Amino acid sequence: MPDALKPGSVVGILGGGQLGRMLALAGHRLGVRSHIYCPDPHSPAFDVTPLRTVAAYDDEAALARFAAEVDVITYEFENVPARTAELLARLKPLRPGARALAVAQDRIAEKTFLTGVGVPVAPFAPVDSPATLAVALSSLGYPSVLKTTRLGYDGKGQRILRSAEDLDTAFAALEPKPLVLERFIPFEREISVIVARAVSGPVAAYDPAENLHQHHILKTSTVPATLSAASAAEAIGIATTIVNALEYVGVLGVEFFVLADGALLVNEIAPRVHNSGHWTEAVCITDQFEQHMRAVLGWPLGDPTRLADVVMENLVGDEIAAIPARLGAGQRPHAYGKTEARPGRKMGHITHVRRFGDEK
Amino acid sequence: MPDALKPGSVVGILGGGQLGRMLALAGHRLGVRSHIYCPDPHSPAFDVTPLRTVAAYDDEAALARFAAEVDVITYEFENVPARTAELLARLKPLRPGARALAVAQDRIAEKTFLTGVGVPVAPFAPVDSPATLAVALSSLGYPSVLKTTRLGYDGKGQRILRSAEDLDTAFAALEPKPLVLERFIPFEREISVIVARAVSGPVAAYDPAENLHQHHILKTSTVPATLSAASAAEAIGIATTIVNALEYVGVLGVEFFVLADGALLVNEIAPRVHNSGHWTEAVCITDQFEQHMRAVLGWPLGDPTRLADVVMENLVGDEIAAIPARLGAGQRPHAYGKTEARPGRKMGHITHVRRFGDEK
Repeated sequence: MPDALKPGSVVGILGGGQLGRMLALAGHRLGVRSHIYCPDPHSPAFDVTPLRTVAAYDDEAALARFAAEVDVITYEFENVPARTAELLARLKPLRPGARALAVAQDRIAEKTFLTGVGVPVAPFAPVDSPATLAVALSSLGYPSVLKTTRLGYDGKGQRILRSAEDLDTAFAALEPKPLVLERFIPFEREISVIVARAVSGPVAAYDPAENLHQHHILKTSTVPATLSAASAAEAIGIATTIVNALEYVGVLGVEFFVLADGALLVNEIAPRVHNSGHWTEAVCITDQFEQHMRAVLGWPLGDPTRLADVVMENLVGDEIAAIPARLGAGQRPHAYGKTEARPGRKMGHITHVRRFGDEK
Repeated sequence: MPDALKPGSVVGILGGGQLGRMLALAGHRLGVRSHIYCPDPHSPAFDVTPLRTVAAYDDEAALARFAAEVDVITYEFENVPARTAELLARLKPLRPGARALAVAQDRIAEKTFLTGVGVPVAPFAPVDSPATLAVALSSLGYPSVLKTTRLGYDGKGQRILRSAEDLDTAFAALEPKPLVLERFIPFEREISVIVARAVSGPVAAYDPAENLHQHHILKTSTVPATLSAASAAEAIGIATTIVNALEYVGVLGVEFFVLADGALLVNEIAPRVHNSGHWTEAVCITDQFEQHMRAVLGWPLGDPTRLADVVMENLVGDEIAAIPARLGAGQRPHAYGKTEARPGRKMGHITHVRRFGDEK
């Protein structure tokens, strides 16, 4: 490990939400410090380390000072501005690198990349005018989903098109342009694979999780997923193909649709630790947060072995009152320290743990 | 839970070593903040929270300010001065309480308490002069162990007496007086039980660990211990008796000698999270640090269920280089963030995890 950073090193983390917070906590267990960079002074990650920068993501002087105070830089969200990433990458190692960001920030770039490395995705077409939308629909048919190419999350930035009447309203409503049209996939279930790649190349993946959404927000992740062993192996194989093709460093989340015949399509990728991997903290020898930090530090990857079955339940808005009010046997809580429980805001999660062999 | 503190509360922790650090990290997972109070500005716990007081333990003005800024107070070491504990307990709940501290700070008080509640300990006698030492030896015999009653740790503050020649030197060398003489116990092995009691009374215990020491410093804790089911149940029963008798709140460590016939003697108790419970972080649904914080916060206790077999290995001095150099499959590292790897200093630990049913 010639490039491995030692305990005592400082990891710079862009973003001060719960993912940055959980990365910093994992870093502490490895004896490394984390410096959080975030424009919002009330960010929950600021509560878990004394090292902080409160500044805008395009504040170049603040970015340069931040880079000077850390040994390596990572991020908790894929929408890091390209110019910010470039500036930082010139000053310190940025992991994952600029290519992963570029691919994950743009749905067209993402689907083009995935198709190019042989990974199956839903049929899609770029859309930059009502005319190109009409052409795209003539090949993809109804229903299809019209999406922004950038900045979408939790179901924001997309509309289902069921007939010609929906076109003009949907095209006008979605911003920023350009858009992308995708064939609507009548999937049986959604799964995800959390995968990691080390600087030196080795890859480690966690068992696939089965994900349920409510109001477009992840509600539960269940492991093991309802999935054949062959499909689970295929999903892990696809995730491995992706991180290898990107020469990726760190943890990446891959979301899949599972079709009725068991076929898999990649829905999207996220170049970061992922909500559907929070269960790893409760039952894996190395969790996704430690795994990401190990990769970023140039360390060997940890062991993703799972020690129990789990259901991870997100606590959204005032559901956070479940901690401590609703805690019982087999439950491991995690609260993100957010002061205001706004509707739709992810406030924490509870992982329900079941030992192998115990009854449901 | 009428008295349960909510996420967002602040726990004051006296002591900034690795135990305070791990308590603060567990608190973060529960959404509570920790304010560390420690005289040493380089304390490792200061790296994991922005809330700190750097002041002496007898600085009454600083203690009062600290108490005003927190909702409840706990500690990572049993040698909190009695006057400090009294002062703080008048201002905010101090958990565990003053009685646990008083008992655990003084070997004579501890053994007297334990004997009084029917818990077996090695025969002992107080010693405050060469004359009382001679009398004590006439009843306890050789070999016996002469110990300070206060401030001993990691084998410091004790001498084995094997013959009358050892008496004067040992009595003169050990400070502070008074001392206590204990019969030397030819034990087969050492085990410990980590137990917790909630404000409202329920008790939860972890599986006993088998402990090996090197140079009087804990080297490994192995779970399961080599112990009959009856002895394991007896050890947990004794630990439960102790926390109930003290009306204790929080986590307490109980060290036992196991004799050749399987009989158990309590060696000592520690009113805090304990090095021999660090393995719980790797494989229990609720670890000892979260358990302590839950008790201190007035929350229900968590589930101590163990999901795998473990060996926890302490990294002492420059053994810390094992993180990351020596990490392999099944290993979960924890580095304490200490900058200077002095000989004999506990720098971190690695928990070796083996899934139930896997080969050794």
